[in-house]
Amino acid sequence: MPFLSHPPDICAESPVFASILANTLLSTVPGVSGAGPTPEKTLLTPALDAELIARGEITSMPVRPNTPTGCPTPASITRAVMELTGLFPLFINAGLTHTPTVPCLDLYGSPGADPRYTDAVPAAGELVQRGEWAGTFLGGYSDLLVLGECVPGGTTTALCVLRALGYDARVSSSFVKNPVGIKEEISGQVLDRLRSAGITTPAAILRATGDPMMAVATGIARTYPGTLVLAGGTQMLAVAALLRASGRQPPRIATTCYVRDDQTANFSAMAGAIGTDVTYVDPGFGDLGHAGLARYCIGEVKEGMGAGGAMFLAHLLGFSPDEIRKQIFATVSAYR
Amino acid sequence: MPFLSHPPDICAESPVFASILANTLLSTVPGVSGAGPTPEKTLLTPALDAELIARGEITSMPVRPNTPTGCPTPASITRAVMELTGLFPLFINAGLTHTPTVPCLDLYGSPGADPRYTDAVPAAGELVQRGEWAGTFLGGYSDLLVLGECVPGGTTTALCVLRALGYDARVSSSFVKNPVGIKEEISGQVLDRLRSAGITTPAAILRATGDPMMAVATGIARTYPGTLVLAGGTQMLAVAALLRASGRQPPRIATTCYVRDDQTANFSAMAGAIGTDVTYVDPGFGDLGHAGLARYCIGEVKEGMGAGGAMFLAHLLGFSPDEIRKQIFATVSAYR
Repeated sequence: MPFLSHPPDICAESPVFASILANTLLSTVPGVSGAGPTPEKTLLTPALDAELIARGEITSMPVRPNTPTGCPTPASITRAVMELTGLFPLFINAGLTHTPTVPCLDLYGSPGADPRYTDAVPAAGELVQRGEWAGTFLGGYSDLLVLGECVPGGTTTALCVLRALGYDARVSSSFVKNPVGIKEEISGQVLDRLRSAGITTPAAILRATGDPMMAVATGIARTYPGTLVLAGGTQMLAVAALLRASGRQPPRIATTCYVRDDQTANFSAMAGAIGTDVTYVDPGFGDLGHAGLARYCIGEVKEGMGAGGAMFLAHLLGFSPDEIRKQIFATVSAYR
Repeated sequence: MPFLSHPPDICAESPVFASILANTLLSTVPGVSGAGPTPEKTLLTPALDAELIARGEITSMPVRPNTPTGCPTPASITRAVMELTGLFPLFINAGLTHTPTVPCLDLYGSPGADPRYTDAVPAAGELVQRGEWAGTFLGGYSDLLVLGECVPGGTTTALCVLRALGYDARVSSSFVKNPVGIKEEISGQVLDRLRSAGITTPAAILRATGDPMMAVATGIARTYPGTLVLAGGTQMLAVAALLRASGRQPPRIATTCYVRDDQTANFSAMAGAIGTDVTYVDPGFGDLGHAGLARYCIGEVKEGMGAGGAMFLAHLLGFSPDEIRKQIFATVSAYR
């Protein structure tokens, strides 16, 4: 397969790579998220991944930039692209439980609550407005925005949002074995709650069962005047679907082929139903000679921190697939 | 007097106006700061002023954008310039006691402590580094950075820093009657503490008796690759002096003529001693027909939130003194 599933028709003179960081308390439900060594510690992952991308290492805690099963975190792919391109990443804090150790454009949201029991993002309306502010701000200084995310547990909020919007979604996971059972159980409970509360509009669904990232991303998409590329898998599908449901053209998406190839999910079909154009990046991790990266090919990790979009952006800026692959190998190998 | 004391030799294609927000607990010492209705409430001023500039009104609290004595806050001047120029201001949170209601580039510092008793900015080294990060980041998207500040009590930390650096400084104040006595008492106590602790280097002085704004501003100045204009009075002198003391060329300053004309201070002489070039803006508030603004001419408020630098920038972008004055009058009158 080629590096990009189809060549993008994008020109950019001043691109920005940004990534929205947020928590949802759903990631602390045992079994939901693989993005951390324990359910509680998944809450730390956005801040630690941001530190890795910004500094090249995690300094605030004695941890290695690997998943609990030994795969390199997708943040290390994003880091490699920043090293290669010289791009300076901007992190957007939409609502975290722990204060980051790297500067963020902070929209002063709160972590998302558990949507089974209460509204997940009670201040979603205000947070969307602050996202609109960020979109206008970033539009003043760039003509292309590649927008990633890091939200442990976020595929489960995405499942809830997509189902609530009426889509027959099955979502991806950072686990090799997608914990479909627990996600279905959660989304079932959430949908029951939404039905009995009569929640049907996209704004109400976002507030009831989304996460802070979705609120900020939809806000940015409403105002950003340049070309916007949502960099992520299932979670960015939920953002695109929320925009579509509120009558807007959903932005394009860039993600990895590993998300598309997840047989437990239906990413391509969902993208088609939502009407968003997706570019899939195939970095060919299978023959890079790195055991941890090779496991992306059998469905582990797959995507995160806008890794797919970052590789897409590097290619757009003129770097060859080989240069990108070599830099990723070099960056990830340095952590061994 | 002309609008600008001397014509600037600056060309800018992509200017940014930013303002650093911070607290120092010194503002809660009765009599130190006029930037709030009570000593405790001075802690809220940076967030409320940012809200005024970003939104055109203070919505999070039922307060008017005036000083306790009825002068328009200098933030309303900055707001007027943003309305006139269409510039989008960026707020940088260096360390606040209260969470802002507008998005900020947050460097996750803490409010400054009382330097009479303890180190004011224990994490100054880290905060300078994060400022360096911000300078590099902003340099990626702009060629001119006009950098203001809002730190209630900040002229007192500035006095302590300037004295500790060996300057015979007398600093300005937002009060018509500069509370020289209490500032002298505080700086005397602080200097005794610094002497007995053997604190003499600029980095140690910043940590011991500066404020979070100074740490971030010096960091930005160390890395920002374009033209940097420090927008403020006494407090920016302290930043310039810290840079000079660490062997760097201090950036230029833009401020109002009301700071220069403060007879209780010695701004021009200090700027000369530090070796920084200052452009003074004379907006001629005396004959605008607004009683509150006219009081700037008798020495009230004088400067704040980069108001002088904002007017300087508007003129640089081609707006005439008359257009700038008219917009300020219109913006401030709308609050009556």
